[in-house]
Amino acid sequence: MSTPDQPIGIFDSGIGGLTVANAIHRFLPNEKLIYFGDTVHMPYGDKSADAIRYYCLRISKFLLEQNCKMIVIACNSASSAAYDVLVDFFGGKVPFVNVVDPLVMEVVKSGYHNIGVIATKATINSSVYKNKINSLNLQANVHQLATPLLAPMIEEGFYNGNITQSVIDSYLSQPVMQNIDVLLLACTHYPLIKDEINEYYQGKVDIMDSIDAVVREVTRILKQEKLLSNTHTGEDVFYVSDYTTSFEETAKNFYQGEIKLITKALWD
Amino acid sequence: MSTPDQPIGIFDSGIGGLTVANAIHRFLPNEKLIYFGDTVHMPYGDKSADAIRYYCLRISKFLLEQNCKMIVIACNSASSAAYDVLVDFFGGKVPFVNVVDPLVMEVVKSGYHNIGVIATKATINSSVYKNKINSLNLQANVHQLATPLLAPMIEEGFYNGNITQSVIDSYLSQPVMQNIDVLLLACTHYPLIKDEINEYYQGKVDIMDSIDAVVREVTRILKQEKLLSNTHTGEDVFYVSDYTTSFEETAKNFYQGEIKLITKALWD
Repeated sequence: MSTPDQPIGIFDSGIGGLTVANAIHRFLPNEKLIYFGDTVHMPYGDKSADAIRYYCLRISKFLLEQNCKMIVIACNSASSAAYDVLVDFFGGKVPFVNVVDPLVMEVVKSGYHNIGVIATKATINSSVYKNKINSLNLQANVHQLATPLLAPMIEEGFYNGNITQSVIDSYLSQPVMQNIDVLLLACTHYPLIKDEINEYYQGKVDIMDSIDAVVREVTRILKQEKLLSNTHTGEDVFYVSDYTTSFEETAKNFYQGEIKLITKALWD
Repeated sequence: MSTPDQPIGIFDSGIGGLTVANAIHRFLPNEKLIYFGDTVHMPYGDKSADAIRYYCLRISKFLLEQNCKMIVIACNSASSAAYDVLVDFFGGKVPFVNVVDPLVMEVVKSGYHNIGVIATKATINSSVYKNKINSLNLQANVHQLATPLLAPMIEEGFYNGNITQSVIDSYLSQPVMQNIDVLLLACTHYPLIKDEINEYYQGKVDIMDSIDAVVREVTRILKQEKLLSNTHTGEDVFYVSDYTTSFEETAKNFYQGEIKLITKALWD
């Protein structure tokens, strides 16, 4: 039986999930987060589904060993490839929240008919958004596009400026992305360039990301399971599987605050 | 004792080294190459030096088990982090060729005084080019710049066009890169955008990459060791540690020909 004073585990292939961690931290300041960034295998967007499943199993095992009361999969590639496997292995122990389902529910409720999705290759190849949206609304037209350069571009800090705008233009002007009413930012990096994407569309297309939906889902489940903490349970802790100073610098941009990364080797 | 009919091993963190493999294949068509791309850990440019060393040891062991007579480290991050360790472990068995030393020798011989180097973060942080050039010519001014977005950009096929030009301009216009006579392309991906970099400089700066220098060094050592093959010894073989169809597509662009990737899991 879990108790409210236990931490929330949250993981990603690297540092993109820090955008989600930051939102949970701000909205639920009493909760202690244990973050794991699998920088040895970053980015997951190019990996095979089997490889991603194995990495996620190992990381979830580690987070459960840290006594987490819930695990948030803060990575779309991991959510689409590994969520079912993780629930199958560990779902009896703690609840898992992925970043796909809350956003899918939100866009289906919104009633939009022509839905664009941009994400990494792994997420797009899995068709997870298209399949889940169409299972709830057969009439929805879901247009998918892999935009693999966006994540490294954001990590290098190229938000704002000519480069960001050229890359965004080049992707969003492709035929498959025309005539959409809403665009789903299906990668935890992309909220950092939401303003630039809005600028491209000049308000003509709604832009939705999973962050707010995930925070609401985490809160809902914690309340339902009586696991919401009422007192401050400790400072957040951030682990990475491979440490470099440049990760730490980039991590501060993603988390929008000072953080210290601790190396935790889960692989030989 | 090695014999001329044994294959040449060549490896990289991913598929960048295929530019080198292609050049060896064209210049020494009798040789059989065994290529290993460590796509599980790609890209090495963001990894710690210790992690890179471990990966390279494991890969070299595999290539020696395939009976290779020589190993080419076709990756700058690996050459700078792991060459000494590999020679220390396995140098008694077969010769190792890295992609740094042949280019360093060439630029020192050229007599250029103001030398620019662009590469991944791992290569630049190691200062391997600066240190090696200055150990041979104390007077040379070596200006280094990490250009981490170039490799993913090239992998996504964004050569030619506005994006490539914006990214190149953004990097090469930085103060540290002014007043150079020659620019070293110190990443095996970058030869694929040599024309675009030439366009930026309009012929005012010489551009050098390691490919020709590496092919010459491989040939020199094989001749010296009496290991050059006089008859066709077999078709090249290409292994990756994690397979995706998109790697295979990109690999064809890098190798400039049809190739089939075989999955070889070296890590659990």
